[in-house]
This record gives sequence, structure tokens and C-alpha cells, in this order.
Amino acid sequence: MFNALTDRVVRELKKIVGEKNVICDPEKKIDYSHDEFSLSDIAHEPDVVVKSNSTQEVSRILSLANEEKIPVTPRGGATGLCGGCVPASGGIVLSLERMNRIVEVDRYNQMIVAEAGVMLMDFYPRVEEEGLFFPPHPGDETAMIGGVIATNAGGARAVKYGVVRNYIRGLEVVLPSGAVINLGGKLMKSSTGYNLLHLMIGSEGTLGIITKATIQLLPSPQMSRSLIIPYENLKDAIDTVPELLAKKIMPLAVEFIPKDVIQITEKFLRKRWPSTLGSTYLLIICDASTEEQMDKLSEQVAAICMERNALDVFVADNPSKQQQVLEIRSKIYEAIKAHTLEILDIAVPRAEIAQHVKRVQEVSQEYKIWLPTFGHAADGNVHTHIMKAVYEDGHIVPLPEEDWKNKLENVRRELYRDCKERGGVISGEHGIGIVKKPYLSYVLDEESISLMRGIKRTFDPNNILNPGKIFDL
Amino acid sequence: MFNALTDRVVRELKKIVGEKNVICDPEKKIDYSHDEFSLSDIAHEPDVVVKSNSTQEVSRILSLANEEKIPVTPRGGATGLCGGCVPASGGIVLSLERMNRIVEVDRYNQMIVAEAGVMLMDFYPRVEEEGLFFPPHPGDETAMIGGVIATNAGGARAVKYGVVRNYIRGLEVVLPSGAVINLGGKLMKSSTGYNLLHLMIGSEGTLGIITKATIQLLPSPQMSRSLIIPYENLKDAIDTVPELLAKKIMPLAVEFIPKDVIQITEKFLRKRWPSTLGSTYLLIICDASTEEQMDKLSEQVAAICMERNALDVFVADNPSKQQQVLEIRSKIYEAIKAHTLEILDIAVPRAEIAQHVKRVQEVSQEYKIWLPTFGHAADGNVHTHIMKAVYEDGHIVPLPEEDWKNKLENVRRELYRDCKERGGVISGEHGIGIVKKPYLSYVLDEESISLMRGIKRTFDPNNILNPGKIFDL
Repeated sequence: MFNALTDRVVRELKKIVGEKNVICDPEKKIDYSHDEFSLSDIAHEPDVVVKSNSTQEVSRILSLANEEKIPVTPRGGATGLCGGCVPASGGIVLSLERMNRIVEVDRYNQMIVAEAGVMLMDFYPRVEEEGLFFPPHPGDETAMIGGVIATNAGGARAVKYGVVRNYIRGLEVVLPSGAVINLGGKLMKSSTGYNLLHLMIGSEGTLGIITKATIQLLPSPQMSRSLIIPYENLKDAIDTVPELLAKKIMPLAVEFIPKDVIQITEKFLRKRWPSTLGSTYLLIICDASTEEQMDKLSEQVAAICMERNALDVFVADNPSKQQQVLEIRSKIYEAIKAHTLEILDIAVPRAEIAQHVKRVQEVSQEYKIWLPTFGHAADGNVHTHIMKAVYEDGHIVPLPEEDWKNKLENVRRELYRDCKERGGVISGEHGIGIVKKPYLSYVLDEESISLMRGIKRTFDPNNILNPGKIFDL
Repeated sequence: MFNALTDRVVRELKKIVGEKNVICDPEKKIDYSHDEFSLSDIAHEPDVVVKSNSTQEVSRILSLANEEKIPVTPRGGATGLCGGCVPASGGIVLSLERMNRIVEVDRYNQMIVAEAGVMLMDFYPRVEEEGLFFPPHPGDETAMIGGVIATNAGGARAVKYGVVRNYIRGLEVVLPSGAVINLGGKLMKSSTGYNLLHLMIGSEGTLGIITKATIQLLPSPQMSRSLIIPYENLKDAIDTVPELLAKKIMPLAVEFIPKDVIQITEKFLRKRWPSTLGSTYLLIICDASTEEQMDKLSEQVAAICMERNALDVFVADNPSKQQQVLEIRSKIYEAIKAHTLEILDIAVPRAEIAQHVKRVQEVSQEYKIWLPTFGHAADGNVHTHIMKAVYEDGHIVPLPEEDWKNKLENVRRELYRDCKERGGVISGEHGIGIVKKPYLSYVLDEESISLMRGIKRTFDPNNILNPGKIFDL
């Protein structure tokens, strides 16, 4: 169905991007064969890696690949967790890493125009320099803007401010034909034809390659504060969330985290979490524009938590305490990574979280496998980690490979079934990629998937763009 | 390309929805031949009007029409302004007016599930009863939920809270085949396949018929207040907006309104606007959670306006004053309706409004036609009214028909050209329908329109759903 990459095509690619931006060396290509998904069986080497430096180059590369019927897999920071940027059919990996320019900061419209290869770690400081604020905060700051948009990344701050989708106003996209289209613009409103902008967001590089984005920013809130609230059990913790919202309190983030992973991360980082009480924590982050408002808000939150059986409330009321708490939260994944098989990304209605996590705990016991689960309590996005280990008396005990291999598939199915029953979806913010593809039909009806296939054929009739992702054609 | 409606099909339709919900009487059908667009030349009578009472009925109607190749035009409150619900090819008008049930209010998830035929005037009170808040507020409260979603309606409150799109979490949609699909759900996050939910929003009934929606609500802000600020000229008024935002003030709405239309509306309603100063007003609506915050915010806004050459600041600081001001604002359209040919709905980057309106004024002088222009200053959505009159010395002087007929088309083109040059779109919140179809290619490239056509063919291979809208196939 695809053609093999020929020397002639490689020569053409070198003409387009320059010799040194075409990588054929197998030693170097291996770096482009995987993302952050832990199992190596989904890895696949590209035939060639091409690093474009402009939209024009992307256009010429796609036009060539489309004519030659060679697959093209776009790649940003490769921080994905389900193989979205793995070149599953070989061919060309088109890395956007060199397209890392902030094109414009538009103070009047409060928008920023950035190329796809801008890393979040470079993006946030630039935004802050302007006294502005980009609310979404996906975990890994080496992620690049293009990938963040292609997966519709979320993060913890989605409770108050929503996901990446809400902030994307314009996209420059290269189609497989090489045509460059501009979707949206510096616009707050548009009802002008089908919304291709929103269709492109979250399409995982299968419909077009995002080369540039116009992103809405907000005035930055003056301050934020973190509260750490221990509970005897998860249900009490989760049940606090609707109480907060009913009392018109809209935190930036509400995370739930079990004590065991906190303790492991404390050891890993040699840092202290402010509480050892209970079995589960809520981490509530609020923002406000004055110290006075912040104090009042913290008091309200604390009072509501205590009414809902919280054991105590710790306030990280200075930047260094806050920093320490947020660092522990953000490094949990690293602390347990060596034993992690897969991070699930189920999103359920907020009201279903406690019951879904209860089911996770049952499955953990049934299958005798460690399934530490934490995530975004107020937006329903639950990250269950499937581990190649059990956790006993404060120790991680590895499982033999044949054991976890058997369990992995069963655990996925059990949890996706539960997700479906609760009206959930299998990905809240990571995307489908390769890893979740077999489970798409658990939560989407056949008609919807069939419409998606039709859309794919409309955009990419030769199926050269990131083939084998989301669904099979 | 379509088949004529036969007696047999009418009998089938009667079997589906019951005899009394099938309207063949020409006298009654005429009510279903138009929307709020003022020129009668786009009106078209349906062959039959069918009023469904359930998703199941909609499914059976579509399945029948698809098999028989008879066009189906869905219809809600018919408050549209560009012919979106006009059955341009005859066939069946499918009215959703009987599907007007609030299916569920989910307090835990803060969502409401409503059928497509629920009118906004019934929707808002139900939401408020729960102490909740649906931020978008399109002008006409006889609009129905389904149509509001199908056009991605906006309204004045979009500055702080965004458009309808931001609040739609789930849709039940019937496809031309009769298949019922469920998109999204009670979910805050999803990255699970292409976002068909967002594609459906704003698709103007051409891809599927929305029968039910799951809508996110917010805790209601405690109070709002309106400030009326007269300026000597439009530029000073518009230039105030970025100053407000730069100082981290995010109003609910910022409207700009010229004095002439205010004066006409005052006479029409026999009510008084609080100021006679200047030539242009800003109407700024703020919300806050305490009286104290509200006072502080009002003072800040007033100070910034005065710094930017405002002539005065009037605060509607009690509900009856606020009511009076908002009523005048909302009735402008009615006050000048008799002389209105068309309401444009151009959206430009916020920073371009003053220049765009300047161009409107030039065109008005050039063509000797009255073009009163007002709209949403902080979100860039400008409603220029093309009038069949001139406005001289405080009097409306009608133009002869042959005169305005010549001018209408030229004025549209001049303003859409200016819109394009400023990176704008021809519709911010009304949709394209029939009236704006000839101008779509002014702002969208041919590739984008071609992708939209491909999407249409995927969803509706027989082109039975609201044919002749947005673009021609």
C-alpha cells in the first residue's frame, strides 16, 4: 500500500531541507522510533528523519511524500504516552523541532503566534514576560505546541480554565497535497462554515500537519495557593468536589492522590509532603487577584473540606512551600516510572470518579496487580497506572514478565468496560495513538468511527499522514 | 436530483408522527417558509411540515427521506438571520418545536440535558432555578437550543465566557441514514478520536439533526452591573477596550453603540438612556461575587474610561436602571427593523474594530446609504445594519427600492473585502445559511471549502440535509 523510500526520494528531501537535516543513520534514527510509552513492542524505526525549518519546507515534503505514497509521521516533543508519534509504517518522520519560533506577541488582541516546535518550557516564560497567562498545563514541559494541539492536551488546570482546545484561535496546517490552509485567526468568534479548526485539534497528526498556531492568552491571575487535604478514604475526598462547586468555588485544579504514591515520591525526591495523615489527599489549587480574596477563598475551601470529613487542611501559603508540593505532585510519574507498564487516561463524568476508582481497586485485588490511581478530581480525568508490580507493606514487588503480560490486557478491558458503563471515554487528554486504538470501539459507536474514517479519506486520500493511528482504515 | 414528495410518503410521515403533526395546508406552511431575514426573495415553502416528538421519530423521518431522496430542513425557533432554516429546495421541514423537554438537571456534574426544541426563554429560568448559570446569551429568547448549537450562537457575554461551543459537552444527533449517534457526554475532557461534537456545532443542520444536548453550566455570579460611557468619537471608545484587558479587567460584555440608534430606540420604547453626551457609547457589563468587589471593579472601569477620554460614566447600579439600559440595547434591532435590509455579522480581530467601522462609515458616505453599526467591542463581532434608508438630521428617509437594491450587493462586497483584509470572517455568530453563501470564498480558501464539501458528502451522501446552505456541493 505504501512505497519504499528510495535513494532518489532521499536526495529530493535533502534538496528541500539541506543535507544535515536528513537523518539516515540507524543509530540516530532509533531516537525517533518511540515516545514515552513504556513498552518497546510498539516502537518502530523510520526510514528517514527530516527536520523542516519552514512551512514551505513542510509543504514540499508532504507534496513529495504524497506523490510517492510514502508515510509521514509528524513529531514534536515526543512526550506522548500512546505512540502517537511513532512511525508505525516506517517512512518519513517529519520533526518540527527546528520550527521553534515565537512569531508574534499581539498585546492588543492578547494572542501569541507560535510555530509548532516551540517547547512549553520556552512558551510559558515568554507568555509570563508579557504579564499574560496560558491556562492549560500538560505535565511535561518538553512537549511542543504542535503536539499539545494535535492531542488536545489538558492537564490539571482544566477545572477552571478548560483544555487546550479553548485557547486555540488559529492554525496554519499543511495538507497531504502540500496545500497550506489557514483555519480561524485572531478571532474570538466564528460561525463561518464547518469548524475545521476544532476538527484539527486532537486529530493526532492524521489530517494535516500543524505548523503554526494563534493562541489566546488571558490576563494572569495575581496569585495562586495550594491546599493539601488528607482524608481517611477516597469517597470523602471525591465527595468534597461537588460541595465546592455548589458553593461557587471554582479552583484552578483539584487533584486526588493516594498516600502510597506520595510516600514513594517523597523518598525519590528526598522531599517532604506536608501531611502523613489518612489514605488519600486532595490537592486544591486556587487563584485570586488579591491577598485578601485569596485568604477568604482558602478559608472557605478549608471549611467545606472539614465539613466533608477532611482530617486536616495544610495551606502552602508561600511560594517555596507551594513549589515543594507541586514538585512532588508533578514527579509522581517519574518516581514510579520504572515499574509502570501503561498510564490510562480515562475520563468519566465528575460524579462517577469515586465509583470508577472503587472498580479500579477491585480489579487490582482481583488480578493481584498494583494500580495506583490519581488524577483530576474535578474534571473526571483519572490516571490509573498499570504496574508490573504489586505493592505490599510499603514495598514495590516486581511481577514476573509472563504474569504482567497476561494481566495487562485483561486489566485494560475491565477498566474500559467500566469507563463505558459510566458514560466515559478512553482518553481525556493523551489521545488514542497506537496503544488505545483497539479499544476505541468500547466507547464510540460504529457510525461515529465510520464518519471519522470518511473524514480521514477526505483529508488524506492516500493515507500517508501518520497511518495506523486512532483507527484502521 | 431530489424526488418530489408523493402522497405515499405523506401517508408514511403521518404514520410516524400522527396525522395532526403533518401540515400540508398552504396557509399554514407559509409560516415555515422564512426566518428573520428581512428580504422575501430567499423565502421558500416546504412541501410538508412534520413535527416530531421524539428522537425515534426523527430517525424514522430521516431514514424515509434518505431512501426517497427528499430534502429535510430542520427548524427550531426560526430566529436566524440568514435563511439557515428556509427549505430552499422544498421537501420536508422537520420542526423540533414539540421536543421541548428538559430531560435532566444534573447538579453533581452541573450539567443540563435538554431537547433541541427547548426555547431559551424556558431554558434560562430553569437554569437559574438551580442557582446555576448558562453564560451565552444570543439576542432572541425564542431561539431554540438546537438552532443555537447548530449556528454556534454567541451574544454579548462572549467576552468573559466564550460562545455556545464552549458549553456543549454532549449531543445526540440523527444522521441521514436514521442512525442515532451520541457525541461526547457529561465530560469535561476528551481526546478520543476526531471531535465530531465540535464539527456538529455550527454545521447549520447540514450534517445531522441535533435532537438533544448536554450542556455545561457554571455557578452563577452573584451580581452584575452595567456602566454606560459616552465618548466624543468611536476611536476613543474602542481604544478603551485593550486598556481594560491589560489591567486584568474582564467584563461580561463590552458593547459599542452609536448615539443615533440609541435615540431612535428611546423614541420607539418611550424609555430614557442615561446619557445624551457624545456620539458613541460603550456599554460595559461586569459581574462579581460581592457588592464590595463590584464597587471596586466599577471604580476601576470608570477610572480607565475617563483616562481614555470618556465624557462621563453612568452606573446602572440598581436592577431597575440596569433593566432599562439592557432593554434599550436589546430592542435596537426591533426599533430599526422596518428599515433594515440585512444585519451583517462580521468578526474581526479585536484590534481591527475601529478601523473596520471607519471603513463602514466611508462606505456609508460613498454609497449614500445608512449603515448603523454596533456590536461586541471586546470580541470583535460587528453588526453593521444595511438599511433601505438614509439618516439625515435625526430623520429616517427611505430610499427607493431600485436604489437600495443596487447598493445592497455593493455594500456587502465592500465590507466583506475589508473584513478579509483584516483577517476576519463573514459570520461571528449567525452562520452562513443562504444569504452569506456567495461570500464564503471571500474569507475561506478553496482547499478549506473543498474539505467541507468532502465532510458533507461523508455525513450526507444523498445531500438531503438542509441542501443549499453554507456552500453548494
